[in-house]
Amino acid sequence: MQRERFGRVELEAGGVLAQVEVGYETWGALNRTGDNAILITHALTGDTHAYDEEAGDGWWQGLIGPGKPLDTDRYYIVCSNVLGGSGGTTGPASIDPQTGRPYGPRFPLVTIGDMVRVQHLLLQHLQVSRLALVIGGSMGGLQAIEWAAAFPERVERCMPIATSAKLSALAIAYNDAMRMAIQADPAWQGGDYAAGEGPVQGLILARKIGMITYRTYDLFEERFGRETVRADVPLGDTRFQIESYLDYQGEKLTRRFDANAYLTLLKAMDLHDIGRGRGGITGAFARITGRVCWVGIDSDRLYPVREQRMWAERLREGGCAVEYREIVSPFGHDAFLLEFEQMGAIVEAFLGGRESM
Amino acid sequence: MQRERFGRVELEAGGVLAQVEVGYETWGALNRTGDNAILITHALTGDTHAYDEEAGDGWWQGLIGPGKPLDTDRYYIVCSNVLGGSGGTTGPASIDPQTGRPYGPRFPLVTIGDMVRVQHLLLQHLQVSRLALVIGGSMGGLQAIEWAAAFPERVERCMPIATSAKLSALAIAYNDAMRMAIQADPAWQGGDYAAGEGPVQGLILARKIGMITYRTYDLFEERFGRETVRADVPLGDTRFQIESYLDYQGEKLTRRFDANAYLTLLKAMDLHDIGRGRGGITGAFARITGRVCWVGIDSDRLYPVREQRMWAERLREGGCAVEYREIVSPFGHDAFLLEFEQMGAIVEAFLGGRESM
Repeated sequence: MQRERFGRVELEAGGVLAQVEVGYETWGALNRTGDNAILITHALTGDTHAYDEEAGDGWWQGLIGPGKPLDTDRYYIVCSNVLGGSGGTTGPASIDPQTGRPYGPRFPLVTIGDMVRVQHLLLQHLQVSRLALVIGGSMGGLQAIEWAAAFPERVERCMPIATSAKLSALAIAYNDAMRMAIQADPAWQGGDYAAGEGPVQGLILARKIGMITYRTYDLFEERFGRETVRADVPLGDTRFQIESYLDYQGEKLTRRFDANAYLTLLKAMDLHDIGRGRGGITGAFARITGRVCWVGIDSDRLYPVREQRMWAERLREGGCAVEYREIVSPFGHDAFLLEFEQMGAIVEAFLGGRESM
Repeated sequence: MQRERFGRVELEAGGVLAQVEVGYETWGALNRTGDNAILITHALTGDTHAYDEEAGDGWWQGLIGPGKPLDTDRYYIVCSNVLGGSGGTTGPASIDPQTGRPYGPRFPLVTIGDMVRVQHLLLQHLQVSRLALVIGGSMGGLQAIEWAAAFPERVERCMPIATSAKLSALAIAYNDAMRMAIQADPAWQGGDYAAGEGPVQGLILARKIGMITYRTYDLFEERFGRETVRADVPLGDTRFQIESYLDYQGEKLTRRFDANAYLTLLKAMDLHDIGRGRGGITGAFARITGRVCWVGIDSDRLYPVREQRMWAERLREGGCAVEYREIVSPFGHDAFLLEFEQMGAIVEAFLGGRESM
């Protein structure tokens, strides 16, 4: 991961950050005109590590690489950690240069628009003139569609996946439960926990709630069913594999994610409404000049296809050049992290749809 | 609510209760042959108060009454609180007669089968010889289908609604998250909290997780959308109506429900598998002699229709007299508490399908 430092950043809700460090990774090379760039915007618990040529452990490994749909031979691919996050970019666990202590609960309110403006600073620094594509799923999709409305002249193509132009009540509801899980943990201490400590149980529970919501009945049934961790134990000691799996996923997250950052990102998601300050959704969509390919997932329980089709339809009504594609998957919301074959075909068709570079 | 006390009850998992008190309500009159009874089995947070002729505040008020689908002029209707619950029947908040203190975390493990055996004791006491119908949704449905397998000679008709013959991995997953919400609250104190105290925040969070799961994207979107509690507040003070609604629902439950009872019922649900000790589901279904009408809800996200249709199909394959009906509703899982018109029509057809009484 590389890091770049920027000066004073004023935030949408009125806060100010005296400086912002941005963690990011890039793959491929920028062309002379600076317009073969692709920006990958990551989801809630995502990070910059979308691809790793050697280790092969990037979270979008199946989509990125030489000759892959996100082709590192043709494109300059950038993935930066979001503002307020926990993976290299300034966030609540960062040191406030004005106090020498971590921001903790004093970290200012950040919006999806703020994340996008910081990404814009980074791309300017990297001499990117125009994005051939901005692409992301879930919270990454919130950023992708915000990009198209905030910097239309910079966005040639935009692919929001399993996401919203403004967050739904259902998604706010789940965020509310995850927020309470963290804040009700006494180890949260109002956000003022010491580095490396913090609300481990609360973050585990938040992650569990998330994981269940991101998956499906069918998947859990097929993969776990009523399988138990150990057979031949008294009935009262029954522990199901699905419980063990959720514990594991929760604990895994606590080793790499700051709880205050999790809260910051949840709130940014809740406040996501690309129509704010732009005359509503219609006004925001009227700004978009790039082409949009909106992608839904048929089994998504958090951002249901009904909503995905609605956004594509409203973009079309708003005069945008939009197409809609749907991934068929048993994985639910998380399919955008797993169904590389279908995703790849959609990305290739969208990028190849007209002359690029 | 009436109460009846029974002696020593041995439980499936090996525990023993020296005595069990059962809270229940009845409406209508039992006939001389004792076979015009209907047993209503309630859901996780349900209670005995399914109907109230005067106050009109029963939770199945729309289904019960003179001339209603569950007709108090024709049937003797019984609704008892479940064993291990929080509404009148012996549960963790009850006084252990052997110690003079509440059972708390020492309350023994209870199964759905145990609940049904205690209901059977009550019905024997009430001189009911046969159930014209046992009916319930969600956890009530777990009991209904258990009744048909446990006491086939006593069940003429059985109507499980939005439920399972053995609990799914998805339902166990949500139960796991709700359990953690309660147990991670330091006020839970390993279950040894004082009466009237206890893990209020944990129970609120558990209820929130439940409420979200019991409803749907469409319903929340239509009813709440992105409506805020107050307009014209700074962005950072935004509070959405959906958050306020979930807080209210959570707090409301804590005023009437014991957290240890909630945990006891979650575990009973997890362990629900009518095939246990009966040669699997096929063996259990082979015991059933009564008619079954299995009811699904098209928008149910917790007990999806795919599962509901599967249970009806497996009952049919097992040689049971089964029919399947589906409620069309935007309410999701909770539709069995709300869609009285459709529910009523299904109940009437099922009860009227052949000579009764």
